[in-house]
Amino acid sequence: MSEEAGAGSTDGRARPVRPRAERARQVADVLRQRITAGAFADGVLPDERTLGRSFDATRNVVREALGLLRDEGLITRRRGIGTLVTAPKYGHGLHRLTGLAETLTEYGTLTNEVRAARVVAHAPQVVTERLALPVGGPAVYVERLRRLDGSPLSLDTTWLAPDIGQPLLDCDLAGRDVFDLIEETTGSRLGEAEVTVHAVTAEPDTARLLGIAEGAPLFAIDRLTTLADGRPVDAETLRVRADRLALRARLHRDGADGS
Amino acid sequence: MSEEAGAGSTDGRARPVRPRAERARQVADVLRQRITAGAFADGVLPDERTLGRSFDATRNVVREALGLLRDEGLITRRRGIGTLVTAPKYGHGLHRLTGLAETLTEYGTLTNEVRAARVVAHAPQVVTERLALPVGGPAVYVERLRRLDGSPLSLDTTWLAPDIGQPLLDCDLAGRDVFDLIEETTGSRLGEAEVTVHAVTAEPDTARLLGIAEGAPLFAIDRLTTLADGRPVDAETLRVRADRLALRARLHRDGADGS
Repeated sequence: MSEEAGAGSTDGRARPVRPRAERARQVADVLRQRITAGAFADGVLPDERTLGRSFDATRNVVREALGLLRDEGLITRRRGIGTLVTAPKYGHGLHRLTGLAETLTEYGTLTNEVRAARVVAHAPQVVTERLALPVGGPAVYVERLRRLDGSPLSLDTTWLAPDIGQPLLDCDLAGRDVFDLIEETTGSRLGEAEVTVHAVTAEPDTARLLGIAEGAPLFAIDRLTTLADGRPVDAETLRVRADRLALRARLHRDGADGS
Repeated sequence: MSEEAGAGSTDGRARPVRPRAERARQVADVLRQRITAGAFADGVLPDERTLGRSFDATRNVVREALGLLRDEGLITRRRGIGTLVTAPKYGHGLHRLTGLAETLTEYGTLTNEVRAARVVAHAPQVVTERLALPVGGPAVYVERLRRLDGSPLSLDTTWLAPDIGQPLLDCDLAGRDVFDLIEETTGSRLGEAEVTVHAVTAEPDTARLLGIAEGAPLFAIDRLTTLADGRPVDAETLRVRADRLALRARLHRDGADGS
């Protein structure tokens, strides 16, 4: 990763010196990993000179790498103080079906601003199809802006089957997890969820609500959740700030069951 | 989701009419899900009027929703032809440790442009620490630009323990998966990987290499893979175009082992 890395290859082939952007990306990748892993416990990164030595990289490369991480919202650079981790990046595990609130309670206090919670008399056909409901019939719609310790984290839109959703309208949607509430009101466990994770950028309205710059990266997590008997009851999209959350999984080469 | 959805609530509380941006987001979320699920088999979306009816939404809301999906690179709008799915979004499963090539072979032909493949005599300290290698010692660095059916898909940077990586330098890195090659050259299976998924945006250099707009969303997938005996041997970051790939998982409420 040094300036001369290209020339220092040992496989005998001539190769151009690596462009700075590429070396900066390499340094940024490793630093992102360390920041997310909580390696800088006091929230302060080593100075540019120390980072340069550690990466065998020039000061310009280190500076460009730090610029990338600043643009991702991971770090703040303050003259005279140094480079600070903006906020820890929370890990949301993908090994088990949990609500965001269940995952994040260990990190702080999650509160929900309920922006919509109502029965929609004629739910969109694509929603009723997904939830296996009668076409043209009702569904319950819930939209919540979620904050962790007061700072916006995600904007979640949820469609629920009416028999499952209606009892929730009288519950504490501002303070409780929807998964918990469904299990409490139905008296049965949830089954499983099909989760699809997209990376998107924030359009102006979402950016305003989440307190981030227009064009900032977001996860759009699509989740269709069933009851234990396999019936789909909850179709939702979570728009989560990517500067605050990373998704984690531990994957096994031979499958989860060890076969 | 109609223009009057706010007024049509049945829970008795007054609520403002939903802003258009919000309704457009809802429509875009459902359409993204359907596109990714392959619901439009012929690659053509219904016209605006039909979508409007299906979502109980105005033409302006539908148009704004389609604009969001176009900005995500999912669809192309052509006057006189309609709205087309740009390219299928491939699903990469998170249930089992597989290389990107292993996942994507069913979708097309994956080729790799090997941009770097060499022994780095003095690997960065953060790399040797992560791979549990002697400080100041060597590691093998591989960088590949991966294309699916000729179209750029991801830019992958990989650090390997020297005894694992060196034999790979004589292998067909342009045509083969690194995971496969490691198992072939070591004669033993890989164990597991810690995977952390970030959403980031493309800086100019990555945008150029991947053939996307600056600021377009990307997954940055950090993966530390071990041999079956638990030894970490492969630390990599995959930068994957988010308009071409979604990550999938099926999560169980009571844990993968059913407990």
